[in-house]
Amino acid sequence: MRPFVFVNVAMSADGKISTRERRQVRISGSEDYSRVDRIKAESDAIMVGIGTVLADNPSLTVKSPELQAKRRAVGKDENPIRVVVDSAGKTPLDADILHKGTGKRIVAVSQRASPEAVERLREHAAVIAAGDETVDLSLLLEELHRQGIRRLMVEGGGTLIWALFERGLVDELQTFVGSMVIGGKDAPTPADGAGFLKEEHFTRLTLIDAIRLDDGLLIRWEVEKA
Amino acid sequence: MRPFVFVNVAMSADGKISTRERRQVRISGSEDYSRVDRIKAESDAIMVGIGTVLADNPSLTVKSPELQAKRRAVGKDENPIRVVVDSAGKTPLDADILHKGTGKRIVAVSQRASPEAVERLREHAAVIAAGDETVDLSLLLEELHRQGIRRLMVEGGGTLIWALFERGLVDELQTFVGSMVIGGKDAPTPADGAGFLKEEHFTRLTLIDAIRLDDGLLIRWEVEKA
Repeated sequence: MRPFVFVNVAMSADGKISTRERRQVRISGSEDYSRVDRIKAESDAIMVGIGTVLADNPSLTVKSPELQAKRRAVGKDENPIRVVVDSAGKTPLDADILHKGTGKRIVAVSQRASPEAVERLREHAAVIAAGDETVDLSLLLEELHRQGIRRLMVEGGGTLIWALFERGLVDELQTFVGSMVIGGKDAPTPADGAGFLKEEHFTRLTLIDAIRLDDGLLIRWEVEKA
Repeated sequence: MRPFVFVNVAMSADGKISTRERRQVRISGSEDYSRVDRIKAESDAIMVGIGTVLADNPSLTVKSPELQAKRRAVGKDENPIRVVVDSAGKTPLDADILHKGTGKRIVAVSQRASPEAVERLREHAAVIAAGDETVDLSLLLEELHRQGIRRLMVEGGGTLIWALFERGLVDELQTFVGSMVIGGKDAPTPADGAGFLKEEHFTRLTLIDAIRLDDGLLIRWEVEKA
């Protein structure tokens, strides 16, 4: 048993989520900002990879006071549980995700993380160890389900998203396509990593809908079961 | 003066035009196949980069007999002029683009191409030399315009498309977004190359429309003038 997993990502019209220098860029606008805040508030947990923490230092908090209040009104923490997938235990101890806003944090590590790193992280977050060299995502999702997480939002980056797709652990993909070309063969994309090599291994999707939002397009895809 | 330049590219939902091994994969379906054939037949010329010639060996001919007949009926060649951007003059002499179907071919080279290579290519195509190390695309487009080309379709790959965007030489971008995730940080994308590093340099687009086609989505963008 694992949570319902949906990936939310904003990319340029040519499929980039950032520049090759991984500088954080504005791809969507205020309408998408509100949408992302809402789907975040509706999730039990929100997950990012360590690359995104190091590049963007996101807090992943719910921004709207109304949405925060709505969560509190039903007995929830103001923010969904924030989960960092961090095989080597490299999350900086002063990362915003560990400090900004109330609510639980989880850092998922593998055996590769040193006991010292784990000990330091435990001062700020619950630590889940799963996997040898890298975090075993299936195990991690099972553990998150056991802890009551039923709806999990994945915010990136491309390496984590790829790893989830590779293992068949994604139920829905939402891409906001922004009105710009960024370019760059080394610029990060929604799904990086090794990539599939054969067509029969591609993750197959079914288009749910596509709507105009800001100056771009929000596309929602359901992942077909293998 | 240059032709109207539009880029047509099919990418996966995560922005890949192929696998990292550059294997040709089926991203769109029969509806998009017919659409591409139609817009090809409506163009005066169709352009690809040498990477695409080497990877896919496309003929870029018009496939529909009706569309071929329509072109002939108005005194045109059966196929639009096929243009290869090939700075070093590496187009294989047995490439399909040089042999399949009737109509004119142009290979655009730079000074880097050896006189011998140019001489051999001239047996199969007109050769335009423009630029020192790489083809000067502005010069090339001017020359194509001088030769009567008013509507130019660019079919890829990512390196040529990037070079055109970088120089502000694109008027419209059409992306078919297919219903699959391919993944891969080294997989080719619609715009590769160096990429823009600063937001103020991004090519800005205006959404024309988005329509369902096959199992995916055809998105058309107009390029904003700088």
